[in-house]
Amino acid sequence: MTLFQKHQATLHQAIKALHDRTFYAAFPENPSPATYGESADADGKAKFSALCGNKFTDLKQAGEDGWAGQEESPYLQEALKISYPTFTVSKLIDRSTAAFHSWRKVSIDERTGILMESLEGMKARFFEIAYATMHTTGQGYMMAFQASGPHAADRALEAIAAGYEELNRYPSSVIWDKPMGKFNLQLKKEWRPVPKGISVVIGCSTFPTWNSVTGIYGSLITGNSVIVKPHPGAILPIAIVVAEIQKVLVANNQDPNTCQLAVDTFDKMITKELAEHPAVKLIDFTGNSMFGSYLEGIAGKTVFTEKTGVNSVILDSAEDIDKVAANLAFSVNLYSGQMCTAPQNFYIPQKGIQTPAGTVTFDQFAEKFVANLNSLIDNPKAGPFVLGAIQNPKTKERVTGAENLPGKVWLKSRVFDNPMFKSARLTTPVVVEVDASKKDIFSQELFGPIALLIKTKDTHESIALAKEMALNHGAISCGAYTIDPATREKIADEMSLAATPVSFNLIGGIYMNQNAAFSDFHVTGGNPAGNASFTNPEYVSKRFTWVGHREPVAPAAK
Amino acid sequence: MTLFQKHQATLHQAIKALHDRTFYAAFPENPSPATYGESADADGKAKFSALCGNKFTDLKQAGEDGWAGQEESPYLQEALKISYPTFTVSKLIDRSTAAFHSWRKVSIDERTGILMESLEGMKARFFEIAYATMHTTGQGYMMAFQASGPHAADRALEAIAAGYEELNRYPSSVIWDKPMGKFNLQLKKEWRPVPKGISVVIGCSTFPTWNSVTGIYGSLITGNSVIVKPHPGAILPIAIVVAEIQKVLVANNQDPNTCQLAVDTFDKMITKELAEHPAVKLIDFTGNSMFGSYLEGIAGKTVFTEKTGVNSVILDSAEDIDKVAANLAFSVNLYSGQMCTAPQNFYIPQKGIQTPAGTVTFDQFAEKFVANLNSLIDNPKAGPFVLGAIQNPKTKERVTGAENLPGKVWLKSRVFDNPMFKSARLTTPVVVEVDASKKDIFSQELFGPIALLIKTKDTHESIALAKEMALNHGAISCGAYTIDPATREKIADEMSLAATPVSFNLIGGIYMNQNAAFSDFHVTGGNPAGNASFTNPEYVSKRFTWVGHREPVAPAAK
Repeated sequence: MTLFQKHQATLHQAIKALHDRTFYAAFPENPSPATYGESADADGKAKFSALCGNKFTDLKQAGEDGWAGQEESPYLQEALKISYPTFTVSKLIDRSTAAFHSWRKVSIDERTGILMESLEGMKARFFEIAYATMHTTGQGYMMAFQASGPHAADRALEAIAAGYEELNRYPSSVIWDKPMGKFNLQLKKEWRPVPKGISVVIGCSTFPTWNSVTGIYGSLITGNSVIVKPHPGAILPIAIVVAEIQKVLVANNQDPNTCQLAVDTFDKMITKELAEHPAVKLIDFTGNSMFGSYLEGIAGKTVFTEKTGVNSVILDSAEDIDKVAANLAFSVNLYSGQMCTAPQNFYIPQKGIQTPAGTVTFDQFAEKFVANLNSLIDNPKAGPFVLGAIQNPKTKERVTGAENLPGKVWLKSRVFDNPMFKSARLTTPVVVEVDASKKDIFSQELFGPIALLIKTKDTHESIALAKEMALNHGAISCGAYTIDPATREKIADEMSLAATPVSFNLIGGIYMNQNAAFSDFHVTGGNPAGNASFTNPEYVSKRFTWVGHREPVAPAAK
Repeated sequence: MTLFQKHQATLHQAIKALHDRTFYAAFPENPSPATYGESADADGKAKFSALCGNKFTDLKQAGEDGWAGQEESPYLQEALKISYPTFTVSKLIDRSTAAFHSWRKVSIDERTGILMESLEGMKARFFEIAYATMHTTGQGYMMAFQASGPHAADRALEAIAAGYEELNRYPSSVIWDKPMGKFNLQLKKEWRPVPKGISVVIGCSTFPTWNSVTGIYGSLITGNSVIVKPHPGAILPIAIVVAEIQKVLVANNQDPNTCQLAVDTFDKMITKELAEHPAVKLIDFTGNSMFGSYLEGIAGKTVFTEKTGVNSVILDSAEDIDKVAANLAFSVNLYSGQMCTAPQNFYIPQKGIQTPAGTVTFDQFAEKFVANLNSLIDNPKAGPFVLGAIQNPKTKERVTGAENLPGKVWLKSRVFDNPMFKSARLTTPVVVEVDASKKDIFSQELFGPIALLIKTKDTHESIALAKEMALNHGAISCGAYTIDPATREKIADEMSLAATPVSFNLIGGIYMNQNAAFSDFHVTGGNPAGNASFTNPEYVSKRFTWVGHREPVAPAAK
């Protein structure tokens, strides 16, 4: 049985889910012993510990020029002391070029089989990846497991499925038979999906696998060779994934350099040198807007970006305002606001929020919101796990600085203990009231757990501001609460024009931060928050070119 | 019966053809009386004549700011004296913005019906469009009829079909039902294909309808409003198409400004002002590389370009070299080399071309090629019709200038009469021998009937040069002649990497210049000749954004 045959059923379920957009997941998100085995968690933790302080030797890339690594755990605030092989850019490019010309000739089915098999390898290391993610990004355990493990693998599978479908969109050849009156003109036509070349995937510090695997697998399935350039602060999670890909490549007689890891350090970043190299045709990037826009502007490259945005919540009316406050407090606390989908600007009409139980005033909502933030933070069974730790010291500075914004500070950032990690870099959310007229304050992403309560004239102004922010500064998510159908449709329509997906009336265990594979387009590509979407057809079809050749059909021998 | 129902069968045939890529045409390409009626040609000619010297009053755009028009017939070398209503850019934009917000809310089916109906209106004016095309572009009658009429309408239908399919790719809503263990999480999810805004379609002087209708119909089907900015030298053919679109819009209670004509003059071009306007989100362009690259570089726009290229012919070996020479001579003579798909660089090995009858030397091939060019030019029943006239006086200067290139001139441009049009602007092809080492000479598009015979070391060098030209300077077509399967595959593979479609071993009545709707991707988008393709899925999917909203399913009432 070939690898393709082994994984065919899953592939077809994934392709079906891409179209149906009903719930589908190939990788269980629950890290329970029943699913992953009694010792899976302990084994993963032990393996992670064993990697710390050592050279990372899982890769099949030989002939390194040195060893380097500067990762630090936000939970321990000390270095992981893992070092990775490093390579000059020219060596990386030369090897990628050679690998490209063998990989592009591997059949689509074989590529599919190899890539899907590598996800099985990744699955076997989900717990190791989870601990690696915790200790590089600061994510809580559950998010680290789910986002870097099963959810990332599902997103990777989504990219494989989308690629497989687009690559098979047209017949490889047909007889084109055109009636010309007295005779038929017959041409044999053939179409080849031609990969673009070397693909560089640039990772971020907060979601090192989830945000990178779609680009990696999207480029590989379409026949490109890939160079993975992780953020120097979050290498290990994706290094494990690359090692698993290389393992399956080698086992199937393919060049391991088809997917290389390109590690650099904070003091000597190689990203620009890689991105600007003429042989690099595809670039995937997650990170800040300035660098993303620079990449988008390099001539001759196909660039896929996820940059920053200003995410809004529009509060108009609600069935149960307490459930709303609880839901939104969770969204802000979750991973301490370090998600690209986290809400920042909360628009509340000056006349308050309408509910069946009467009007909830601006101040009443602010109090409920703050109370819910506090009660979650102070719940020892939830707070430390939901908030996680702060990846970057600058984020902590930004949160403290937000207390000096011109407006009433409803909640200050405060001391907070994580009993498991006494040295963790922690901070709790800050909540500031801002008048709608002070647009300069809320017209930017304030990355981290910073919530701005913005008092508007009415919901029309709330919508207009949320739309304006998305159009001018980007937005990846939007929350909205309304029980009025006309207002709902106005929000849906106006935010659509700003290419921003809206989560309406979320309460309970689902949050506006969350995006699911096979059903949610993550980043629409239609506003400044990014130019690409996980995973619409363009996400894979722009990684190759359809080229059609043709030739007259030879006259049949008589 | 709705318009959608009326055209549904054709739509589905077109969608099927998009996938099958076997021959399909909805509009007969033969202008025979049997197909189009006994008086169709005479009627069309009369209508064209009646338009000349008058105001063009077919449009439904009211409140013009002036009247202008500077078209000139290449056959008569005198002004057509047709004037068109002109509008300020701000008026065009304001009206397009208003039309956008009504058009985007028209259902996909209704948009489809209206657009397909407009092609019926266009069909009724194919002959009028043909004469308008002849007397603006200089095309011969048959090309003017086919390219501007049925072939353009087929390409428009292709864009409608591709758009219809992409718009219906995902369900408009589903219940997303995620098992969470003890309960299911249920969300109602909906997806909207949101059009991007105002689309500006910039026409060219040689193919005023064929190169513009894909952008016009591609943008309209996806819900955008369109401003058509024709080349000031070739307005009438596309003005008739726009008039037909407006007619159907008005008949169906839609705003005629959904598709506006924006005429300008050589002395006061409005293209940049339109393209740079912040409300313009989509730009389609056919024309020179410099302006195309400028447009591609405007931030915040989705731009579709077809620019210039250097098209190559690789001559390695052939069954019958006379048929090859005849076929290529036709390709060069056709519309006097003014097609973007016309061959320019002919790579011939210094050891000659292998045939079953022995080696044909470089000089022998040059002689056969020149003889075939001459015999076609001098054939009074074919020459004038195949060569047509020269659209732009600069093209004629360029052809004459080519005789001064450093190399043996195998054929000079010469005097040639078109008996029907004594004042026509005519020129015959020039053929110059160039050594492969003189790359600066053939590394650029020499627009017009200019053929360079380039002597190479061997076919490997021929392929390398053809590939290099395509990669560095763009290419839209490539011809190749070889009877060796390994050489054929090498050419197919190498030119694929340069994103250039290859026509192999064409002889008889099919030429490398020709691209058919529903089967040939015109321009691949993968080399500098352009960034878009008629019509791959991206061609329409980039004109709108998928936006998904979601909301918890309300608990059922008990």
